[in-house]
Amino acid sequence: MRFLDIIEKKKNKLALTDEEIQFWIDGVTNDTIPDYQTSSLLMAIVLNGMDEKETAKLAEAMMNSGDVLDLSGIPGIKSDKHSTGGVGDKTSLALGAMVAACGLKVAKMSGRGLGHTGGTLDKLESIEGFNIFLTEDQFKKQVSEIGLSIIGQTGELVPADKKLYALRDVTATVNSIPLIASSIMSKKLASGSNTILLDVKYGEGAFMQTIEDAKTLANAMISIGNRLGRNTMAMITDMNQPLGNTIGNALEVEEAIETVKGNGPKDFTELCMCAGEIMLMQGKIANSKEEARKMLQEAISSGKAFEKLLQMVEYQGGNVEQIKNTKLLPQAKFVTEMKSREAGYVEHIHSQQLGILAMHLGAGRATKEDSINYAVGLRMNSKKGDKIETGDLLCTVYHDEELKQEWIENFYKTFSFTDNKVDPIPIVEEILG
Amino acid sequence: MRFLDIIEKKKNKLALTDEEIQFWIDGVTNDTIPDYQTSSLLMAIVLNGMDEKETAKLAEAMMNSGDVLDLSGIPGIKSDKHSTGGVGDKTSLALGAMVAACGLKVAKMSGRGLGHTGGTLDKLESIEGFNIFLTEDQFKKQVSEIGLSIIGQTGELVPADKKLYALRDVTATVNSIPLIASSIMSKKLASGSNTILLDVKYGEGAFMQTIEDAKTLANAMISIGNRLGRNTMAMITDMNQPLGNTIGNALEVEEAIETVKGNGPKDFTELCMCAGEIMLMQGKIANSKEEARKMLQEAISSGKAFEKLLQMVEYQGGNVEQIKNTKLLPQAKFVTEMKSREAGYVEHIHSQQLGILAMHLGAGRATKEDSINYAVGLRMNSKKGDKIETGDLLCTVYHDEELKQEWIENFYKTFSFTDNKVDPIPIVEEILG
Repeated sequence: MRFLDIIEKKKNKLALTDEEIQFWIDGVTNDTIPDYQTSSLLMAIVLNGMDEKETAKLAEAMMNSGDVLDLSGIPGIKSDKHSTGGVGDKTSLALGAMVAACGLKVAKMSGRGLGHTGGTLDKLESIEGFNIFLTEDQFKKQVSEIGLSIIGQTGELVPADKKLYALRDVTATVNSIPLIASSIMSKKLASGSNTILLDVKYGEGAFMQTIEDAKTLANAMISIGNRLGRNTMAMITDMNQPLGNTIGNALEVEEAIETVKGNGPKDFTELCMCAGEIMLMQGKIANSKEEARKMLQEAISSGKAFEKLLQMVEYQGGNVEQIKNTKLLPQAKFVTEMKSREAGYVEHIHSQQLGILAMHLGAGRATKEDSINYAVGLRMNSKKGDKIETGDLLCTVYHDEELKQEWIENFYKTFSFTDNKVDPIPIVEEILG
Repeated sequence: MRFLDIIEKKKNKLALTDEEIQFWIDGVTNDTIPDYQTSSLLMAIVLNGMDEKETAKLAEAMMNSGDVLDLSGIPGIKSDKHSTGGVGDKTSLALGAMVAACGLKVAKMSGRGLGHTGGTLDKLESIEGFNIFLTEDQFKKQVSEIGLSIIGQTGELVPADKKLYALRDVTATVNSIPLIASSIMSKKLASGSNTILLDVKYGEGAFMQTIEDAKTLANAMISIGNRLGRNTMAMITDMNQPLGNTIGNALEVEEAIETVKGNGPKDFTELCMCAGEIMLMQGKIANSKEEARKMLQEAISSGKAFEKLLQMVEYQGGNVEQIKNTKLLPQAKFVTEMKSREAGYVEHIHSQQLGILAMHLGAGRATKEDSINYAVGLRMNSKKGDKIETGDLLCTVYHDEELKQEWIENFYKTFSFTDNKVDPIPIVEEILG
């Protein structure tokens, strides 16, 4: 097999065979195919696409390029959940505790944040002592015993994806549904769960800008999952404003805690409930949405969901006192209230820009090497559709350095107002799969 | 300027600006843009194209990446001619002598052969002592004095094209009209002539398989030439059978000599006459095709064309005795007559395959490093449309090693016959520009 012929085929818009895709990914993994050949193929894929069979094979080949977790020793269905990333997305923390409290086994590997999107691992690490670096055995043991663990990647998962992603990043070949879908799914597949729930966000603060694009990506990922024997579903959810009320690591942990206690923001609580319904049904814990929702409500009201969160933190070495009393979580030096300069209904909240502003406070990373200040961030005191008078509180800023005038001006640009009532957008647009 | 944005633009099917194309070619020339980024852009160009303005700018930027010959010191119009390559293509040798004999200044840089196509330089080097490595000054002096010189590239012409071509070759990005056209034209532009005649071949033995493709390429090259101030014309010519009767270096030199003496094969002579007409009009030597043809016929019948060929060989240190008496050119050890196993009208002669068979005899190179046996080759004793009886002579093989059975069988496969009369295809299909 010659790699040149494989590029030629894709250039001519032909489907690659399983063997050809395997040959490519083997070559990427073993560095036997030079980058300049791979980048040529990548651009051909971006422009000429891949069909569902090719995309699934690509995900499978990448999955098999490194370690693959075997969770079969843990009894029952193991469930995973993945978000395409957004601003204020603390879903895994609250949702994991909620569904695990209902008896689901949640074995989740998460990532760190970059740019305007946060990462679950960073949020968890704002809890003193919380260890995201469990060994594979520790991870499995914890999922077996308490039904919930959230960690960073163990071993060497999908090295081919790491290499391909680094190359895509510098060759303008990131935006391609088959490449994005297979990249995400290769990691989900390698982490060994039986069921996968994808939270595909759309909107200004998301990777996919439109509902249509989000659905296309979701369907591509569902196809991969199902072709490879995983029960895969997806939610299309709104990211045209931050999720929940907080952006920033400790602030989001606090909000997740409030949510599992039943005191969370409406949009975020609803997202967790919808996701929980799907996951409990995928995990055969519940037979209907209604049954699942009741179980979730019961887990919250009984305190079981909060107990499950406490248990996970304890198992992973975190300071449970911070969970019991969130005032013990990292606190910023300064708290500044941002009052509205305008009146009207909140029409838009530019979530990507807010994510970037939070990053500038220290809540996120501009580059992979940056460190994070867990205490800083933003609390939304008003959200889309709220009626605001001049001087009303829009947002509370938690910061360690004095706010610069430029930051403040940029902040005010993230809100826009209208005289007309604004119709609410449902947090969950559609469920696919 | 970020190269990533340039790739992104072409990926989105947008036209690149002059500055962006210059930035790319500077980066290729200076090795500041990594190959993996260039190959991504190349594939985007292959699939999304370039408009005429972009293509001309690409050719110009490549031309300026290295030395550019200045022929302005030579009085009058300097003419160049380029063939896209074929089997049995000895045109430059005969045509150069014919038009130079009519007073045109022909300053031509040629290339070597590879694969099934021959190269003018290899044919010239089958003449003992012939020096293709003139200095720029020697080249100009010779064109000034005798109006004709054919050499290899001097100095460092279009280094960007060399680098790009090497990369295109291994990334399946060769087949792209803008890339092919700008590559060919960058070299023609850098070699400094005022007028350019392009012989764009179509058919089984050519780079372009169909008349349509050949015309598209021709028009792209004409557009580049005209945009950059060169009078550029093109002929679309047939390569569905070998050109003339010979394939092989000394054999082709002999045929070129016969042609300038008026004894050449009909198709090859007609090609030279048509090309000569265009070149003499481009060079303002003749005012009409009819006038040009008369001048060319006179150059042949008077012996002036032959004298011009002799003069060039003499100026470039070649053994003129071999030109006067072609029996002194390299002769193969064995001569084998291939007789037809079938009867009928010759319907197809697979010229690409014949080129490869000649290469296997030693007449061409499979790789750039191979050396050439000047004596070996093929003489067609029958061509398309000829009526053949079983046992009639199809072809004469000149070889130094015994012919293998496999070679013989492959040879017979290159001819196919029909019971019906075969209409002749004109050697020159169309003239463009």
